[in-house]
Amino acid sequence: MSEPAALPFQLIPGNTLLTRTPEEGRQLAIKMSRLVIKVTQPDSVVRERLRPIYAEDAAMLIAICQTVATEFATIAAANNYWRDPKPR
Amino acid sequence: MSEPAALPFQLIPGNTLLTRTPEEGRQLAIKMSRLVIKVTQPDSVVRERLRPIYAEDAAMLIAICQTVATEFATIAAANNYWRDPKPR
Amino acid sequence: MSEPAALPFQLIPGNTLLTRTPEEGRQLAIKMSRLVIKVTQPDSVVRERLRPIYAEDAAMLIAICQTVATEFATIAAANNYWRDPKPR
Amino acid sequence: MSEPAALPFQLIPGNTLLTRTPEEGRQLAIKMSRLVIKVTQPDSVVRERLRPIYAEDAAMLIAICQTVATEFATIAAANNYWRDPKPR
Amino acid sequence: MSEPAALPFQLIPGNTLLTRTPEEGRQLAIKMSRLVIKVTQPDSVVRERLRPIYAEDAAMLIAICQTVATEFATIAAANNYWRDPKPR
Amino acid sequence: MSEPAALPFQLIPGNTLLTRTPEEGRQLAIKMSRLVIKVTQPDSVVRERLRPIYAEDAAMLIAICQTVATEFATIAAANNYWRDPKPR
Repeated sequence: MSEPAALPFQLIPGNTLLTRTPEEGRQLAIKMSRLVIKVTQPDSVVRERLRPIYAEDAAMLIAICQTVATEFATIAAANNYWRDPKPR
Repeated sequence: MSEPAALPFQLIPGNTLLTRTPEEGRQLAIKMSRLVIKVTQPDSVVRERLRPIYAEDAAMLIAICQTVATEFATIAAANNYWRDPKPR
Repeated sequence: MSEPAALPFQLIPGNTLLTRTPEEGRQLAIKMSRLVIKVTQPDSVVRERLRPIYAEDAAMLIAICQTVATEFATIAAANNYWRDPKPR
Repeated sequence: MSEPAALPFQLIPGNTLLTRTPEEGRQLAIKMSRLVIKVTQPDSVVRERLRPIYAEDAAMLIAICQTVATEFATIAAANNYWRDPKPR
Repeated sequence: MSEPAALPFQLIPGNTLLTRTPEEGRQLAIKMSRLVIKVTQPDSVVRERLRPIYAEDAAMLIAICQTVATEFATIAAANNYWRDPKPR
Repeated sequence: MSEPAALPFQLIPGNTLLTRTPEEGRQLAIKMSRLVIKVTQPDSVVRERLRPIYAEDAAMLIAICQTVATEFATIAAANNYWRDPKPR
């Protein structure tokens, strides 16, 4: 995997795992996964070429679900599962 | 993975991980997985075309089980495993 | 993945993660995985056709182990690992 | 996956996750994985036929490691990571 | 997997899981994954040959995301999810 | 998976998950994975034949990273993430 030295972008937008809502946490999970792909394959042309490959492949779509589920588990724990009804 | 900017739907129905029962939590886990597929492949025609592919493929069905299990682990923890017999 | 609206069966038998023993928890883990397959592929004829495929495929058997292990992790945590010797 | 009704064997030997040592916990993790394969494929002849397939396949050996690691995570947590030096 | 006896490099840079920020934790997760590849395949020529293979393969990119997510879960827990706004 | 009765070697070197440093914990994670392969495939000739197969296959190298990450998660939790700066 490529070394992320002097990255021109953040791997975690906002540099925090804390979100106001579960929905925002879920969006963060998807973004964080996408950014690992970006740092591993920095060429946007290649990434665009790969997009229809995984978006039309049932097995890869399921694998993406698995990855998002794993990221979301961490984010949900960080936010104490948004059990507190008050916005933070 | 596609960026979920201005999503026309929620990634987490109800915007909460809290459910009254384990059964509802399990249903939420399935829905949350399905919605990641939807955000990654927004074209419902393509999704419908993929459905019989994974639904008739043993390996993909097992992979779906894995994904649901991972989502459910988070939801179950959020609900403190529904140990409290009183409805919430 | 198919939407489990108006399911004719429960995804979690008994609607609880709490079991008396680890053995029962393990059986629940297997049942819960099986029921996700059932909700994703409701046609019992197709499911019966798939059964020998995964039951005679080493890689799929290992994948099933992985899924059961993940479900069991949640069930075991829910039961506080059955550390308390008294039956519940 | 096959329904484990009236199993002629236990899925968890000794019906407990508690072991005296990490080594015994590790052995239990391997046994528990093996027993899920046994309940899914009850025919010992088939299982014996599959053994050299996965034992000589690098990818399947790695997948077995993954499964054992997941089972062991649960067992280790159940035993509070055997932090207490006294035998139980 | 190769035995890491007398490694000429550290598997965990800085020999700590503690980082100041989530962003640094994410970078550490990527580095730690990369170093497992390095210890398993010490030949840099082979590693360089493999790089375009996984960087242009959608399924492998997703698998890398999965690995990074798993490492990051551990690092995030170690840092108590960076909930404390003060730098450490 | 083969039954580890009367193993001629330990599955967990030192029979403990506790290590002085994260680096040693990482090495233990790699060793523990390797020993599961050894117990599943006891023939060292076969294992040596498989080594270049996975060490030169990008997908398998990533799968090894996944396994090590999972083992390490358990070891890190066992050591309370080495948060205490004092050696143990």
